[in-house]
Amino acid sequence: MAKVPVAIMGASGYGGVQLVRLLLDHPEVEITYIGGSGTAGQSFGELYPHLGHCFNLPVENLPPSAIADRAQIVFLSLPNGLAWELAPQLLDRGCKVLDLSADYRFRNLDTYTHWYNTPRSDHHINAQAVYGLPELYGEAIANAHLIGCPGCYPTASLLALLPLLKQGLIDMSSIVIDAKSGTSGGGRKKEINLLLAEASNSVCAYGIAGHRHTPEIEEICSQVASQEVLLQFTPHLIPMVRGILATVYAQLRDPGLVADDLLTIYRSFYRNSLWVKILPKGIYPQTKWALGTNLCYIGLQVDQRTGRIIVVSAIDNLMKGQASQAVQCMNIMMGWQETLGIPQLTFYP
Amino acid sequence: MAKVPVAIMGASGYGGVQLVRLLLDHPEVEITYIGGSGTAGQSFGELYPHLGHCFNLPVENLPPSAIADRAQIVFLSLPNGLAWELAPQLLDRGCKVLDLSADYRFRNLDTYTHWYNTPRSDHHINAQAVYGLPELYGEAIANAHLIGCPGCYPTASLLALLPLLKQGLIDMSSIVIDAKSGTSGGGRKKEINLLLAEASNSVCAYGIAGHRHTPEIEEICSQVASQEVLLQFTPHLIPMVRGILATVYAQLRDPGLVADDLLTIYRSFYRNSLWVKILPKGIYPQTKWALGTNLCYIGLQVDQRTGRIIVVSAIDNLMKGQASQAVQCMNIMMGWQETLGIPQLTFYP
Amino acid sequence: MAKVPVAIMGASGYGGVQLVRLLLDHPEVEITYIGGSGTAGQSFGELYPHLGHCFNLPVENLPPSAIADRAQIVFLSLPNGLAWELAPQLLDRGCKVLDLSADYRFRNLDTYTHWYNTPRSDHHINAQAVYGLPELYGEAIANAHLIGCPGCYPTASLLALLPLLKQGLIDMSSIVIDAKSGTSGGGRKKEINLLLAEASNSVCAYGIAGHRHTPEIEEICSQVASQEVLLQFTPHLIPMVRGILATVYAQLRDPGLVADDLLTIYRSFYRNSLWVKILPKGIYPQTKWALGTNLCYIGLQVDQRTGRIIVVSAIDNLMKGQASQAVQCMNIMMGWQETLGIPQLTFYP
Amino acid sequence: MAKVPVAIMGASGYGGVQLVRLLLDHPEVEITYIGGSGTAGQSFGELYPHLGHCFNLPVENLPPSAIADRAQIVFLSLPNGLAWELAPQLLDRGCKVLDLSADYRFRNLDTYTHWYNTPRSDHHINAQAVYGLPELYGEAIANAHLIGCPGCYPTASLLALLPLLKQGLIDMSSIVIDAKSGTSGGGRKKEINLLLAEASNSVCAYGIAGHRHTPEIEEICSQVASQEVLLQFTPHLIPMVRGILATVYAQLRDPGLVADDLLTIYRSFYRNSLWVKILPKGIYPQTKWALGTNLCYIGLQVDQRTGRIIVVSAIDNLMKGQASQAVQCMNIMMGWQETLGIPQLTFYP
Repeated sequence: MAKVPVAIMGASGYGGVQLVRLLLDHPEVEITYIGGSGTAGQSFGELYPHLGHCFNLPVENLPPSAIADRAQIVFLSLPNGLAWELAPQLLDRGCKVLDLSADYRFRNLDTYTHWYNTPRSDHHINAQAVYGLPELYGEAIANAHLIGCPGCYPTASLLALLPLLKQGLIDMSSIVIDAKSGTSGGGRKKEINLLLAEASNSVCAYGIAGHRHTPEIEEICSQVASQEVLLQFTPHLIPMVRGILATVYAQLRDPGLVADDLLTIYRSFYRNSLWVKILPKGIYPQTKWALGTNLCYIGLQVDQRTGRIIVVSAIDNLMKGQASQAVQCMNIMMGWQETLGIPQLTFYP
Repeated sequence: MAKVPVAIMGASGYGGVQLVRLLLDHPEVEITYIGGSGTAGQSFGELYPHLGHCFNLPVENLPPSAIADRAQIVFLSLPNGLAWELAPQLLDRGCKVLDLSADYRFRNLDTYTHWYNTPRSDHHINAQAVYGLPELYGEAIANAHLIGCPGCYPTASLLALLPLLKQGLIDMSSIVIDAKSGTSGGGRKKEINLLLAEASNSVCAYGIAGHRHTPEIEEICSQVASQEVLLQFTPHLIPMVRGILATVYAQLRDPGLVADDLLTIYRSFYRNSLWVKILPKGIYPQTKWALGTNLCYIGLQVDQRTGRIIVVSAIDNLMKGQASQAVQCMNIMMGWQETLGIPQLTFYP
Repeated sequence: MAKVPVAIMGASGYGGVQLVRLLLDHPEVEITYIGGSGTAGQSFGELYPHLGHCFNLPVENLPPSAIADRAQIVFLSLPNGLAWELAPQLLDRGCKVLDLSADYRFRNLDTYTHWYNTPRSDHHINAQAVYGLPELYGEAIANAHLIGCPGCYPTASLLALLPLLKQGLIDMSSIVIDAKSGTSGGGRKKEINLLLAEASNSVCAYGIAGHRHTPEIEEICSQVASQEVLLQFTPHLIPMVRGILATVYAQLRDPGLVADDLLTIYRSFYRNSLWVKILPKGIYPQTKWALGTNLCYIGLQVDQRTGRIIVVSAIDNLMKGQASQAVQCMNIMMGWQETLGIPQLTFYP
Repeated sequence: MAKVPVAIMGASGYGGVQLVRLLLDHPEVEITYIGGSGTAGQSFGELYPHLGHCFNLPVENLPPSAIADRAQIVFLSLPNGLAWELAPQLLDRGCKVLDLSADYRFRNLDTYTHWYNTPRSDHHINAQAVYGLPELYGEAIANAHLIGCPGCYPTASLLALLPLLKQGLIDMSSIVIDAKSGTSGGGRKKEINLLLAEASNSVCAYGIAGHRHTPEIEEICSQVASQEVLLQFTPHLIPMVRGILATVYAQLRDPGLVADDLLTIYRSFYRNSLWVKILPKGIYPQTKWALGTNLCYIGLQVDQRTGRIIVVSAIDNLMKGQASQAVQCMNIMMGWQETLGIPQLTFYP
């Protein structure tokens, strides 16, 4: 049987190279196009020499029409603000589109415009987009042609929060998300603060009270909780390559709930979610448990003294937080087995 | 002029080697005794070969009486639960004692007994101990003979919180401290989770809702706020050697306060504190800025949307969080210049 | 078709957990026994919580006879000096045995006895053992029942040297191997020098002129070169979790050879080796390219000024340097496809 | 007494910030000018916020004539190829000049021109320059007005080799230097390969058979050995911020020499060198022992089997390998105590 041709626009960054690596192992697809602007003309092996022996397509810079001739599925792994001008052309030509940028993550385009400084009036197309968090929107993803893949922080944060929101277990104004990310989250960008000499052996907060993932988390939380949710989100830069840990705090509405109750609720909520693993009581995840996989590990505790629940979730920011979650969405869109081509266990340590 | 003889009990751990290093450079003191149990009989250069060329006393294991014959000032850098049996003998013989363990950090010995599983009835001696946070208790330290030096997390947390508590600016039930520490905080101990292979390239939370530094922070907060304060404290293990970052969240009572107001309040509060540096608006500290120094860097932000203040403080856990703060206390106790022998600037990066 | 039952003795260390992880994904085998001494009685999920959701056998401590009842293939991942007392009993009962320790790596037992301080007289059994480097001894492995799996440093060093030795291209007395390893090479052991606080942000040499991998490398080199080879081997501890880089220096016998010539020779030598990748001219490997895979990347250069060849090889010390190479050997012994169950590409970065 | 005014041209890089940090603590000098091209107009605190509270001069971009009006001593911490056009103007105006680039490191300007692709004909000025390695050229430095400060790798390599060269103990054609550096050696430059995401958890070689520090090491070795020396030098990038370890191999001419003999020779050679510490037999240095100091730690071993000596030296690449060595030279040039303003002990770990 012929494999499905797939294109990656923006293949030279970290998201792109994850997609290449994943799709090379995927039994149902074949990469037929890799795109880049600054890197066009180079072979992929020049960008990533370790892959040259098995994947060495040239990076090209073609218009959407030409890409649609070569591919049925297109992953957009581009800077924010480009996808919404490209995706419509691809959709028109019958492609399924998975966008890894922020462009299709918001129902409310005003929010997007406010936080991303980009005017948008493509309400019609945007309304077709489904937020690519399969643990929440699996059915809609199955029927979608356009996916707005979640940000890395929102993925970790939402998976930690969903059961609490769905069941109204917490005071919605009390949510604090203290998140920690490896530096690959900043992309393959030449930035002083991402240099090993600067970021190693140190930790810092950034984007306090103003990070763009805040409204994204809030919009989904509000939908799930059926009320407007404003929350505190603070990201930190950790001296490690990959991984996100989200430590989530919230006030429980029922002070009588104990950790065992909550663990039961979480296990039940994620009963059918292959990739979310609820840890035993007293065990909290390390980010490296999830490295190179699509898994999200969750541990939690209740503090009887303060009445708070503390939930800790761990993912690989470039996998469940980006590329492998996109492949998971693709599998669902195409009606394939959800696990196809997605690594399920890390190598530890 | 003769130098003051100083002893270090528990010199072989990370706290001990910091003290040795600091006191070697201190113009007014001379190390006359270094103690250890498991390492007794070895020379210090065997434990730390890089120091052998300039400091090579043998590690001994003498009783307090013999130590008091050799030293006027004694630093206790021992596991929790030992100091309170040793300090009285040293005090009796006229020594000034600085204890780096938890033994003398609590006014309320019931709290100590509850969290450290150690019955205590030495109320009389304990009442003489001063909590060694000079930014708060400088005058009492000047007159003290016995100092209970603060824990590393409490130092970072309290310096971030003090102005808010003192002035009653926040809802006292809303405090969340999300703290991040390098692995040296675990001591020079043979533990699997502190191995580079385990802790590197990863981050995790631990001791959720049950870390012993919680009651220590709370006791001081309660004193400063003149009301009982319960708070949420969660420590994390960061893949770096040294440093603590405390990210502190609290609900402001006055929603009209903006970051500039708070920065003014903080600068004013720490006007006479040599070691606390309030950063300009929009700048948040990196832990490595403080490495090898007694400094605490503080940045803050107000989120108008949620009404919260977020304060971030950074220290070197082994310095301001342990050894150099003890030396700062010694300087104050002895009436010396507060900066004597204490490094004031790191080498970056 | 029934899967082949496999046992792992010594499953709780880093070699063991790699084997568990690899064999879980292997289509032809099933793990039926995991052994440990100190950890017996615990479940595997207690040792490695991230695996608890999919693999949770209890660690047992059974004698070889009982293990042979449960398994056809036995991996021994034990400290040096234990395997040679256990393997004969397993072989007697018809098991195929792959030993990851040093016990079966030496033809010459005197060498073993000298370097490992263990008297040995089991010449008969030892003579049946094949050195498990498939790139060199593939045919013998296919017919073997007992494999002495190579050490991590020897694997990286030998793959860098083999073409030079086989073809007599270098002065055999001029070989210098400067090797660099991540700290996982030290095992899951509670050692001060392997703590993150000690090993991070630093590099050091160890075992200079006395590391036990020296005679192992020399014995194989001597066989391949058909003359006695003595060489210089110096290992270094690198602040990273996994990976070995071997930088190998040797004097070329023919000063006219250039890098292109050597690259041609290397490509030809490894033509049929699936796992050895010779890089283009001017490209030298990073260890992380090989992480989580069985690959060995090799780059080389000739210095016309000095007449030396410099070869750099990179492997994952726990994979090609240990566990996945053992699985590769198993595949060959069992007549299975050599790639079965072995990861072929890393996730970068 | 008035402090001596000092200027730093190129103050915004890592060399510059070390100089600023060192000179702030130096009792005899005062920084009166800091220069930069791309950063001109910013305050130093904007570049390095942790220093803003105590040092916040504006970065300027003035011509040498204006700088000479403000300073008696000028440090040039600029990219290669700029100093030789600036220094003459500064010398003409009576300044003492310490150049941290490669411009004044070579007696033989043809070598410079060949390796740095820059034609030079300033033989007259260049002949006045002294190579700023005080352990070798202390007297000449005392009388010099122009110092070509050594490269980081050459400093570590030469200190390891000097006793062997001076006494003719080794076969001069057998020298192999395998050097390992933290990534700060690459400067505060926006380079992909210096990103934490790329360089962390990995090690690689670079510049094999072609690194520009090779001819620098060779020129000094040739002078000391009184014969032309060609050697092998291979640098590696280590996932750490600072530090260089040089592992040096050479064939001993007298096979009867043992490690104790060599240690005696090294101790004797460095008897009067304050900053070089020869370790006891069997102890090899860690780079972190030297961090933040001007020290060079040396350990060595003799391999009786191969007749080689292996010497391992460790320095801080930005200190003894760059900035603090320049300050050491300044102290000697000015007739001050050699240790003024230079840290002598690290904080470990």
